[in-house]
Amino acid sequence: MNDAEIVDNLTALESLLQVTFHDRTLLRRAITHHSCCPDTAVHDSYDTLEFLGDAIISAHVVEYIYRTHPDASEGEMTAVKSEVVSRRVLARVGQQLGLFPFICVDIANLRTFNERSRDSLCADVLEAIVGAIHIDQGTEHARDFVTRTIFPMIELVSNHAIDTNPKGRLQKVILQRTGNLPRYRVLEQSGRHNDRAFLVGVFEQEQLLGTGKASSIKEAGRLAAREALQLLQKKDKHSSANDTTA
Amino acid sequence: MNDAEIVDNLTALESLLQVTFHDRTLLRRAITHHSCCPDTAVHDSYDTLEFLGDAIISAHVVEYIYRTHPDASEGEMTAVKSEVVSRRVLARVGQQLGLFPFICVDIANLRTFNERSRDSLCADVLEAIVGAIHIDQGTEHARDFVTRTIFPMIELVSNHAIDTNPKGRLQKVILQRTGNLPRYRVLEQSGRHNDRAFLVGVFEQEQLLGTGKASSIKEAGRLAAREALQLLQKKDKHSSANDTTA
Repeated sequence: MNDAEIVDNLTALESLLQVTFHDRTLLRRAITHHSCCPDTAVHDSYDTLEFLGDAIISAHVVEYIYRTHPDASEGEMTAVKSEVVSRRVLARVGQQLGLFPFICVDIANLRTFNERSRDSLCADVLEAIVGAIHIDQGTEHARDFVTRTIFPMIELVSNHAIDTNPKGRLQKVILQRTGNLPRYRVLEQSGRHNDRAFLVGVFEQEQLLGTGKASSIKEAGRLAAREALQLLQKKDKHSSANDTTA
Repeated sequence: MNDAEIVDNLTALESLLQVTFHDRTLLRRAITHHSCCPDTAVHDSYDTLEFLGDAIISAHVVEYIYRTHPDASEGEMTAVKSEVVSRRVLARVGQQLGLFPFICVDIANLRTFNERSRDSLCADVLEAIVGAIHIDQGTEHARDFVTRTIFPMIELVSNHAIDTNPKGRLQKVILQRTGNLPRYRVLEQSGRHNDRAFLVGVFEQEQLLGTGKASSIKEAGRLAAREALQLLQKKDKHSSANDTTA
């Protein structure tokens, strides 16, 4: 590529990313694999920008999960975060963005090159681009870019991993199965003032489906619904396992 | 603790942290271990704030390393970051800050409690406090707090892990050993324009100590010095091993 082609290439990439760089050498570095500059890799390849971008993406993703899923436990948040910032998901985002044609890599000098290498390069370069935007444009622009490109994956992933509305979900399941609505009853109440505790049970007719204990009736009900859903799921697995072996 | 004592406690903690919270329930939550609120832990304990703070600390630490050590490789940066955000170092920072007396934990209900639990609680709560400051005060205040409390550890750690000035260090070593200065010579030059490569050797008198190859004479010299230092270190290890067995 000659100098004019490189400039055209960076211009096309900027318009794809919706970011105009002050210092385009940062953008160029973000798309340069070290195979293209073995002797000056520390300064000219994307490795350290990728390292920076990885940490920045994690912080934005975790903050977004924290703000949008205030009822999720730390375990649920960790599950969503790990999935969203996984190589697999970042590769998909990078591929969908169309980063691959912009990446400078000396394929002939790589030991192997296949579809996985392509995915891996796209994940690397997506991270490096976030690092470059952060350094060149500041925190807010990097967050905007992450919001546009990566946050949509959080919603996809968290639908599996976080159960934000167990009572609603249980109601749907029970209604479909029996035509009845689940009912909640306080089974026990203990403590006073700041250390009150409620034991709540959820029932279908007279059958107890699950219980939960918490300092508010509402939270105890949520926990009971969650337990009920888990038990129903186990039952289903068990009966479908029986079906298969029958 | 009664309500007035809790308020006094939070005021003292705010002055220790040099941060005044808009929403003090966040600060209270940041110092509350889930053993104190088993039934409402998701909302009242520090677990999710700790998860958030951990990601935010990492991002600030990585950015600081990136900006202050532009010549470090990704491997060197990773080594420094891992050490700085390790449980051990964060526990030390939390202990030195004096966080422990502020932590609300139901020790009687923990399975074990010893010095390690104390360290672990201090690391947790330091992270949670960063998360709380980030949510309550915004990015900049969280970064300021991390700058005051955690960045000083980066300098301590990186002195071991990153060799920012191999030529300076080699000069000192050679001068001490022989009274001479190391000298650099270009041994080979190849390529043209953008793909030039220089092979540089570093010598003590006529003895070759190390070589380095890069697209600039300066970088090739740094690499040669680094190689020389590594070889000298190996030699020293070898001879001191001989000393011990002698």
